[in-house]
Amino acid sequence: MKALEEKILAEGKVCSGDILKVGGFLNQRVDSNFMFLLGKEVYDLFEGTGVTKILTVEASGIALALAAAYYFRVPMVFAKKSSAKNLGDDVYKAAVHSYTHNKDFEIAVNREYINKNDKVLLIDDFLATGEAMEGLANIVGQAGAELIGICAAIEKGYQGGGDSFRSRGIRVESLAIIDEMNGKDIKFRS
Amino acid sequence: MKALEEKILAEGKVCSGDILKVGGFLNQRVDSNFMFLLGKEVYDLFEGTGVTKILTVEASGIALALAAAYYFRVPMVFAKKSSAKNLGDDVYKAAVHSYTHNKDFEIAVNREYINKNDKVLLIDDFLATGEAMEGLANIVGQAGAELIGICAAIEKGYQGGGDSFRSRGIRVESLAIIDEMNGKDIKFRS
Repeated sequence: MKALEEKILAEGKVCSGDILKVGGFLNQRVDSNFMFLLGKEVYDLFEGTGVTKILTVEASGIALALAAAYYFRVPMVFAKKSSAKNLGDDVYKAAVHSYTHNKDFEIAVNREYINKNDKVLLIDDFLATGEAMEGLANIVGQAGAELIGICAAIEKGYQGGGDSFRSRGIRVESLAIIDEMNGKDIKFRS
Repeated sequence: MKALEEKILAEGKVCSGDILKVGGFLNQRVDSNFMFLLGKEVYDLFEGTGVTKILTVEASGIALALAAAYYFRVPMVFAKKSSAKNLGDDVYKAAVHSYTHNKDFEIAVNREYINKNDKVLLIDDFLATGEAMEGLANIVGQAGAELIGICAAIEKGYQGGGDSFRSRGIRVESLAIIDEMNGKDIKFRS
């Protein structure tokens, strides 16, 4: 998506190592107008696939997931990252390793919120090694639901998570795929 | 807001003690159509006040904040609950006590994302004792921005947080205010 690539080049900041900061428009200060353009793009990509539910993980996936859900007119469910008091015991759980925070955590979704009749689209802000998406896909499997596909705003292509799903026949659509990031120099997959 | 009160009565579940579960439509499985009705209601309440930014705290405030931001056509900023690696050092911070999780945590917003020219509306899913909103209001103060008001989907009126703000002259609009909750018996403020 050209508009997202341009936004990343104009407003993103590459920090030490491998960190791309897009908190100015994507995941802390959310440019709401732009977020709904992204949501519409997700809708256009997966229109006609029969999506009944959008699943993401708190917190930074929620904005894009809701913007997409607005166009699909389906519910959006977000997995919680720890077993919160309000969540109840009757949950699907999956273990996820976070490279950003260098720790393992658990994600959980109440069993009431996904079922075997659902056709689920997974959404997140970033797709890098794919750990979070693996956890969400695991939960879709536990529910006996159908995984329609995976959509991230920004995929770090060189980290291989997206291509790993693709090699297993899972449809992955990322709105921008970065194949190289070297200081200010960001190369998008064409 | 009548539609929200009806939804709470139809789909909410009162659990042991003081917990109202509305995860089926408000804060885990988000009914996206309904969420945009709530966002529009927030907009109608605060239209004409010159809101330039909507501020919430991750994770369950994000959906309503984004739905409202959609109508205001302004950015939505969410405070992070711990000092994440990607956040940077240059942040406004405030301490918050969570009664739900019975622990203290810190919320933080990057200084770039709110400034003294902003007119800020605070949004969250719940307003009970008001701890999270106090933290957000504190951050608005640190930024030298103007606090336009506070809006929660559901206010637990009997816990006093909302009325505490009102007594200090801060405008608080909650879409539903629960003044009593006793098993299945929920009494709304009229």
